[in-house]
Amino acid sequence: MTDKSSFSSRGSTGEVEEGLAFAPKFDADGLITAVATDAKTGDVLMVAHMNAEALRNTIGSGEAWYYSRSRKALWKKGEMSGHTQRVVELRVDCDQDAIWLKVAQAGPGACHTGRRSCFYRAVLPSKGGVVRLEFRDGNKMFDPKAVYRNS
Amino acid sequence: MTDKSSFSSRGSTGEVEEGLAFAPKFDADGLITAVATDAKTGDVLMVAHMNAEALRNTIGSGEAWYYSRSRKALWKKGEMSGHTQRVVELRVDCDQDAIWLKVAQAGPGACHTGRRSCFYRAVLPSKGGVVRLEFRDGNKMFDPKAVYRNS
Repeated sequence: MTDKSSFSSRGSTGEVEEGLAFAPKFDADGLITAVATDAKTGDVLMVAHMNAEALRNTIGSGEAWYYSRSRKALWKKGEMSGHTQRVVELRVDCDQDAIWLKVAQAGPGACHTGRRSCFYRAVLPSKGGVVRLEFRDGNKMFDPKAVYRNS
Repeated sequence: MTDKSSFSSRGSTGEVEEGLAFAPKFDADGLITAVATDAKTGDVLMVAHMNAEALRNTIGSGEAWYYSRSRKALWKKGEMSGHTQRVVELRVDCDQDAIWLKVAQAGPGACHTGRRSCFYRAVLPSKGGVVRLEFRDGNKMFDPKAVYRNS
């Protein structure tokens, strides 16, 4: 799907920060950072990227679309797994170079590893020495091999 | 300050995703995306970047440090405004290329425009046509000119 919604050109800093024109700033690769949080719990589910088409599709459909840098492809979240994300609210930050999606996550989880969130490990405090991780909410909610069996 | 904490080298996908070695992936500019949420409300306060030194300092000090791409400088959040961020929990995502900080935000807000969060505008649904924004939680909690008067 391709939505025809259009974005505004970027004006002055004041216009970008205080105005109501949507003028997203894409980076040199044509991407903008997108953070999806669970609309109920506030947990960060994933950090991903959108190109202009993914952003237009998200705005037009009310479901999350992203751009995969590794696969170099537009991607509707959940198109394979069924774990789609319905957009409850979409926000943009002050300089309009990041998008926040509050979503209703369908299915047991957002992460391709089988967890609810991609952020299932805590970075432990350290003052010198090798930094270590610890699992938090690390239980697998689904079997990735079964869900992504055609990938 | 420079913390001596060290990171692990990146292993296989399985090691990066399922292991407990912290092997953050910095991009071509030496940066990793960092999302700070309010530990109490779950609201996204800001999306920023860290270089290795900012990440080490954050882990070592328990307070958020970032790297400013515009100023090309290491930056302790709140060093000028006093609006520091105490790290309640630090997490890393599956492929270890994004950091989530749950923080206790000191002072009235995180955003340089004077708001609590940098995400004070919603992107309105649209099917075709020019996309518009709407203020949400857009009240200024402090006067940026007074807080950043030396900048």
